[in-house]
Amino acid sequence: MNKQLNGLPIVILVRPQMGENIGAVARAMSNFGLKELRIAEPRDGWPNPKALEMAAGAESIIQNAVVYENFQAAMADVQLAFATTARPRNTDKRVMEPAAAMAEIRAHCDAGLNVALVFGPERSGLANDDITLCDTLVSIPTAPENSSLNIAQSAVLIGYEWFRASGDAPQLSREAPDPAPMEDWHGLFVQMEGYLDAVDYFRVEARKPVMWTNLQHMLLRARWNPQQVRTFRGMLRSVWERGANKG
Amino acid sequence: MNKQLNGLPIVILVRPQMGENIGAVARAMSNFGLKELRIAEPRDGWPNPKALEMAAGAESIIQNAVVYENFQAAMADVQLAFATTARPRNTDKRVMEPAAAMAEIRAHCDAGLNVALVFGPERSGLANDDITLCDTLVSIPTAPENSSLNIAQSAVLIGYEWFRASGDAPQLSREAPDPAPMEDWHGLFVQMEGYLDAVDYFRVEARKPVMWTNLQHMLLRARWNPQQVRTFRGMLRSVWERGANKG
Repeated sequence: MNKQLNGLPIVILVRPQMGENIGAVARAMSNFGLKELRIAEPRDGWPNPKALEMAAGAESIIQNAVVYENFQAAMADVQLAFATTARPRNTDKRVMEPAAAMAEIRAHCDAGLNVALVFGPERSGLANDDITLCDTLVSIPTAPENSSLNIAQSAVLIGYEWFRASGDAPQLSREAPDPAPMEDWHGLFVQMEGYLDAVDYFRVEARKPVMWTNLQHMLLRARWNPQQVRTFRGMLRSVWERGANKG
Repeated sequence: MNKQLNGLPIVILVRPQMGENIGAVARAMSNFGLKELRIAEPRDGWPNPKALEMAAGAESIIQNAVVYENFQAAMADVQLAFATTARPRNTDKRVMEPAAAMAEIRAHCDAGLNVALVFGPERSGLANDDITLCDTLVSIPTAPENSSLNIAQSAVLIGYEWFRASGDAPQLSREAPDPAPMEDWHGLFVQMEGYLDAVDYFRVEARKPVMWTNLQHMLLRARWNPQQVRTFRGMLRSVWERGANKG
């Protein structure tokens, strides 16, 4: 597993649209000491000259950015993901303010975990499927009259709070060391979805997306380590293979 | 003396150059509950259509902005001025970080004082004569590699800290509400242990206590609410009843 750069969180942009915004995010990253940028499915391809133009002082971040074919691929080695969202959705995900979230991330980074800061596309924000992969939502408090922040503004605020937290973060006690990376969870979910489809668990196809998302959220909440994910997969396989009424 | 609007600080832009930046400042103001904008000596005159274009959701702030012939005129009724500067200058002025400064401003506003948040021109920043009129310098901490923030970024950060200090920020829910009581978990565990014994999951009886305890701990970590416990029980029952090789 690639360990992240220098104990810093990775910034992941999901389906960003305008190159200018990618550049502005990179600039904010360099203002506040962040280095690693990943870009999933950039609308206008990559490299994007407009990104470089806007990256005043952050050209190296743009030049070293890595593009992934989708969000899941960008998350393969990520152990904890914090997604900045305009406002909390109807979700079981934990919602935190930026300052508290960044303090926690600092502690996770100090413990050697791969942590991602996730930002969605400009217009639509993150899709529900994207949010499913994230552990925590970070919500920036805004005035009710105008709660719309653009991605550059959000990145500045998150970077600022990261930088503030990076000085004096509290030590967190972590119950389960070394949370499993997303690729482990993905393996579990593929296996489990196969079983559930086979037993017609969802029954009505139209209800499946919500039911399946809820199930994934429920399991992700536990933040298992890789061994625990394997244990759960083995348990489920046993029940599947040798359940009731087997010959 | 004009009393400021609703106990809010006034934003004063000193010799701003680009209309786009004036609009971006107005947008940040409306994101964080600020209303009154004053503009001293705008380079490109006033009104400026580019300011209106960039003021997404903050058009009324632009339309109500008042232009002054110079900074001193814009400061006529201001009782305390806090100037945001890129970095502290050689000065006797007090220098504060944004959070502490905004908390103090909140107290001054509550006491009925007219307080100004001052931003200088894009390229050069505030001149020494401008700084002379200000009581306190507000310095945003940045990484040494790239300490250059543009005026839109600075306004977002100052607005954000104002909003947090003003106590209007909504309280966010942290955890999933209503964790299931232990009797719900007990029901799940009885059901699950029955399945696992039936499929001989533990195989060696001597290993069962540790394995079973670990499994229960894993699931309890998720702190599900009662509905989520029921969902998990239903999922497990489906796999059990209709798993592989059913006839």
